[in-house]
Amino acid sequence: MKGVSVIGVGMIPFGKYPEKNIADLGWPAVKVAIKDANIDPRRIQAVYSGTARGGAMVGQRIMGRIGLAGIPIVNVENACSSSSGALAQAVIAVGAGAYDVALVIGVEKLTKFGGGTLPLDDDDWEVKLGLSMPALYAMRAQRYMHDYGVKAEQIAGVSVKNRANGAKNPDAQMKKEVTVAEVMGSRMIADPFTLLQCCPTGDGAAAIILASDKVARQYRSDPIAVRASHLTSGKFMSGFRDMTSPEITVRGAKETFEESGLGPADIDVAEVHDAFSIAELLYYEAFGFCPRGEGIGLLESGATKIGGRIPINPSGGLLAKGHPVGATGAAQVVEIVRQLRGEAGPRQVEGAKVGMSHATGGGISGFDHGACSIHIFQR
Amino acid sequence: MKGVSVIGVGMIPFGKYPEKNIADLGWPAVKVAIKDANIDPRRIQAVYSGTARGGAMVGQRIMGRIGLAGIPIVNVENACSSSSGALAQAVIAVGAGAYDVALVIGVEKLTKFGGGTLPLDDDDWEVKLGLSMPALYAMRAQRYMHDYGVKAEQIAGVSVKNRANGAKNPDAQMKKEVTVAEVMGSRMIADPFTLLQCCPTGDGAAAIILASDKVARQYRSDPIAVRASHLTSGKFMSGFRDMTSPEITVRGAKETFEESGLGPADIDVAEVHDAFSIAELLYYEAFGFCPRGEGIGLLESGATKIGGRIPINPSGGLLAKGHPVGATGAAQVVEIVRQLRGEAGPRQVEGAKVGMSHATGGGISGFDHGACSIHIFQR
Repeated sequence: MKGVSVIGVGMIPFGKYPEKNIADLGWPAVKVAIKDANIDPRRIQAVYSGTARGGAMVGQRIMGRIGLAGIPIVNVENACSSSSGALAQAVIAVGAGAYDVALVIGVEKLTKFGGGTLPLDDDDWEVKLGLSMPALYAMRAQRYMHDYGVKAEQIAGVSVKNRANGAKNPDAQMKKEVTVAEVMGSRMIADPFTLLQCCPTGDGAAAIILASDKVARQYRSDPIAVRASHLTSGKFMSGFRDMTSPEITVRGAKETFEESGLGPADIDVAEVHDAFSIAELLYYEAFGFCPRGEGIGLLESGATKIGGRIPINPSGGLLAKGHPVGATGAAQVVEIVRQLRGEAGPRQVEGAKVGMSHATGGGISGFDHGACSIHIFQR
Repeated sequence: MKGVSVIGVGMIPFGKYPEKNIADLGWPAVKVAIKDANIDPRRIQAVYSGTARGGAMVGQRIMGRIGLAGIPIVNVENACSSSSGALAQAVIAVGAGAYDVALVIGVEKLTKFGGGTLPLDDDDWEVKLGLSMPALYAMRAQRYMHDYGVKAEQIAGVSVKNRANGAKNPDAQMKKEVTVAEVMGSRMIADPFTLLQCCPTGDGAAAIILASDKVARQYRSDPIAVRASHLTSGKFMSGFRDMTSPEITVRGAKETFEESGLGPADIDVAEVHDAFSIAELLYYEAFGFCPRGEGIGLLESGATKIGGRIPINPSGGLLAKGHPVGATGAAQVVEIVRQLRGEAGPRQVEGAKVGMSHATGGGISGFDHGACSIHIFQR
């Protein structure tokens, strides 16, 4: 146990807000979290703000907008796990007694880059040769199909499930259910991925308020405990030894379960990093929700639907809720906290007591991923 | 006391390296720090990497180059206090027992932007109207001259002192002494600042290895204790109430001294954020090294020279050592640690036992500065 609880969460609906700057995306999420925590905002003692491509001083800009600067503010960049990485630091600081109450923000404005995949840094030779994120995951999907005799239509089932979940989430960017035929009939991006198997580009913000267990119940009677908070980086070149076993997540899962004393069977609900349809299947296996090669069977059994044995991405995940990169990790935690409180409405996972969030990313030459952060929460 | 010590420091000479990418700037500084700490690099358990404009996954890129990834790596952006902000997080984590040994990196490549001031974000209306950093500090200088009857030539004396110090520092970007006449005769940038009163544009990297007091002496017999580690953000609009009193540093200094139980009279040597000549004078006063309005007198008395009562910026400071933004805070600590160990050669401050570093910056609309970090070290 870390001695740290979540007392407030908030987000704005993910989507496209080309007219808003990043501070004006961020502060409304913070205000929702403050209201949710039932806290005087002047009790917030530190801010950890995650953004991948938001530019300079994003946390300061957001807090300045609502008159709450003058406290420590740290901006964290860790690609897709920017705000979950920020959360990991906030958990350390609150757990250490450095602060009683800390705010975590995740925010991103991707519409400023236009559409398509993000512009990438100029010193990635593999990326320059074509190994963009869709291409990397497409190679994994091809290998998975080859190794396990799986058809492209089967993998498309991940998008069908997650879009069905997103249709129940007012904060999701994509709120329309789709069929396998619609997924397969959408534009080809990187074989076997069609457009609807790739997370959309969008903007968003999410916020989390942490409190030490000592003070948490001053604000809410139902604090959600942080059972594990884990961050790691990829091992150089390891990602290419085995295309269908994402090393950073396999190792991260193992270390997180060791840290928490929990195992995959203890997880009632999880948000995992389904940036592409295949990713969710690989993560089922990486977390041990099923043996290797059986992810497709787990999906097709219905076990990962809401109402199944281990519902995955009830929010709609990155595929439907959206993936404004720096906001994603925090938004996953918003969903898990709402699930554990029983506030998830039509997408509620009944009786969920333990939930997990998983954000991984940052494809750079020679790594599978540069950063992965996993958190486990318990009511 | 934090229970945290510095056991290793390293940097590369600041300068212009347009042919190197940011990872290749960073890893040589890390290797110097590892050698300095006399440590098996596999004992490093976490990395906090600060960069302001370095792009994505900088810490991962650096650690990947030297085969040391696979551990938690956090990238921190806090403008001029990016690496000092990273240090503040590492101190919390090591102090909390999360890690026994952590590495802090500061790195920046400014040559990629060409020359002149940095490109700024698009949502700063004051900046768009002309309030760039040179303009902001020039207004402060004008006010200081008006309030205290000081002449531009007198303020130029800061550059003369710091260039003299830089001439003794093999890691400085500017190694040539200059006279007041040369400073005043250089190109006008923002009245009263001539070119030699503005820090140069350049590239650089610096690294610090922290250890818990529990393990520090396994590596070195002379660990340098972290006596205070402070980070704060500016208060909205406060910076413009009094142009010659930098609110964020005045408050930061007060809180840092309270935290450490020390006062300005206890500081034997300090590196302060002299991005422009006037800044150093304002910070003399903000830290209480002299009363308000007497900074120019303190300079002219020789007290802040090496050999004086309170030597400031023996490294040459930002004006001579250079200011690769994200690298600056860590490089200040490199200098202070070398001073406290008695390793500073011709620029040694004799008998220095307590040293301070101060990095502040991030001019955004409505703030004086967005982030300020102050550290105090003791041998």
